[in-house]
Amino acid sequence: MFDLKKYIQKKSRVVNDTLMLLLQNAQQGETINQAMQYSLMAGGKRIRPVLCLAAAEAVDGNPKDALMAACAMEMIHTYSLIHDDLPAMDDDKLRRGKPTCHVAFDEATAILAGDALLTMAFETLASVPVENGDQAAKWLQIIRIIAIAAGSQGMIQGQMLDIAAEGRRLNTKDLESMHFLKTGALIETSLQCGALLADADKAQLGFLKTYARSIGLAFQVADDILNVEGNPEVMGKAVGTDRLNKKSTYPSLLGLDASKEFARKLIRQALQALETFDNKAEPLRAMAIYIIERKR
Amino acid sequence: MFDLKKYIQKKSRVVNDTLMLLLQNAQQGETINQAMQYSLMAGGKRIRPVLCLAAAEAVDGNPKDALMAACAMEMIHTYSLIHDDLPAMDDDKLRRGKPTCHVAFDEATAILAGDALLTMAFETLASVPVENGDQAAKWLQIIRIIAIAAGSQGMIQGQMLDIAAEGRRLNTKDLESMHFLKTGALIETSLQCGALLADADKAQLGFLKTYARSIGLAFQVADDILNVEGNPEVMGKAVGTDRLNKKSTYPSLLGLDASKEFARKLIRQALQALETFDNKAEPLRAMAIYIIERKR
Repeated sequence: MFDLKKYIQKKSRVVNDTLMLLLQNAQQGETINQAMQYSLMAGGKRIRPVLCLAAAEAVDGNPKDALMAACAMEMIHTYSLIHDDLPAMDDDKLRRGKPTCHVAFDEATAILAGDALLTMAFETLASVPVENGDQAAKWLQIIRIIAIAAGSQGMIQGQMLDIAAEGRRLNTKDLESMHFLKTGALIETSLQCGALLADADKAQLGFLKTYARSIGLAFQVADDILNVEGNPEVMGKAVGTDRLNKKSTYPSLLGLDASKEFARKLIRQALQALETFDNKAEPLRAMAIYIIERKR
Repeated sequence: MFDLKKYIQKKSRVVNDTLMLLLQNAQQGETINQAMQYSLMAGGKRIRPVLCLAAAEAVDGNPKDALMAACAMEMIHTYSLIHDDLPAMDDDKLRRGKPTCHVAFDEATAILAGDALLTMAFETLASVPVENGDQAAKWLQIIRIIAIAAGSQGMIQGQMLDIAAEGRRLNTKDLESMHFLKTGALIETSLQCGALLADADKAQLGFLKTYARSIGLAFQVADDILNVEGNPEVMGKAVGTDRLNKKSTYPSLLGLDASKEFARKLIRQALQALETFDNKAEPLRAMAIYIIERKR
């Protein structure tokens, strides 16, 4: 029986150690580095980097080859959280059970720490030692894919749509495309980069894309459900906020039971997409189930 | 006699056309793209891209090879202005004679437009078609150099020091290192990238570094002088604000006349660094003089 908890712990440790090393390469003691480290090492679930490494393994590659991409994805994810939490955006005071970056430091520092983490992600990707021109070309491709997913046609557009949706009732189609941009694009990219760096073939990339779309959406449905019936102490943030802010969510559009059924259906689709993969894809299969069963 | 005005016009037109093309590759009509375009096309002086292209020419290269790096530098410069102008930072209402991004749109959109321009810079750099592995490796190097200059050890740290310096009196040494990080690093990188993409040799890169350090600092001294005696209508922004905000500036530390003499000395140093270059470096020579004689 595959032990996902142990797997996530092991992979997270590698990612955390590498992130700390990358942070320490920067000057010590400066406020900006403290703020970057505060948010980056605040105990995130590391779902994106774990998916990236697991995708490399699933196509029979060495996860080490994807480690820097995994770390860059977490830096970009963390920068987006810091900026999303700002007073001008969601104005959140608590994240992962700790004061948000602009509360722990100040607003200017939080804006700049987000900027710095985004910049550091690209520095990290461009600093991987390459042995030949093919490898250099592959890392350029990785940088392009990640920049597109994180940019004005991807995650940032998702955040714009999220802000525009405040107080309006979305239909499930608009909700789905907003979530795909806001969180799905980075999740899909994490898997894609892991697989590309492990030299996946076209068919494998296609199956992983289907897997990614399904778990990306399921992740968001599960988030919406947790905001209704999750335990704020376990989650490290407030619940019930979506209803308070009159946000369109899957429970508000479909009801709680139908939302749970929808999440389960998505996970079945994700598992189906992995049918041709051998037992090296066990971590991805277990991650799909974890995504809807998690408590935080 | 070399006509700098015509040269800047010509190069700016190429840069502006390319920036518009890159923006149009993104979806039309979305607010985020409007905000990005609003700030990117607000009539900036295009000093960084012009220096980048002129450096490529000075080492006998084709400026076309450096065009995408030139555009990326302007995107990063514009993102930094949008974030610097935010209420949590300098709280500026006017930039280049127009309302700042957060005034014309709103604060959330301005934060995201800055994020999107930074991301687009790296997308642009990673999307240049490469013909072989050496070229791919060179663009990776360019991305790394730019990310380091723009990141928490470069421009962002300069902005942190600038914020920390508010209300404190700096000495000229601290003022110089703050300015080097805040503006000098990007100016130096613009020149370095232009030269690298035109296959400059080590000696040329060294001379251009000296040139860059001198004009970078001179640029800031000139900015400080303009804030004392510039014409707000020509500049498109308020003057006298440094004194109002009790900012440490060269005029406040050295006096106005000594500041002008210091700027002239820096320009003499910059010209000296170009002594071994032939007449292909005329644009760089003229740019050095323009930097302290400009009225905006």
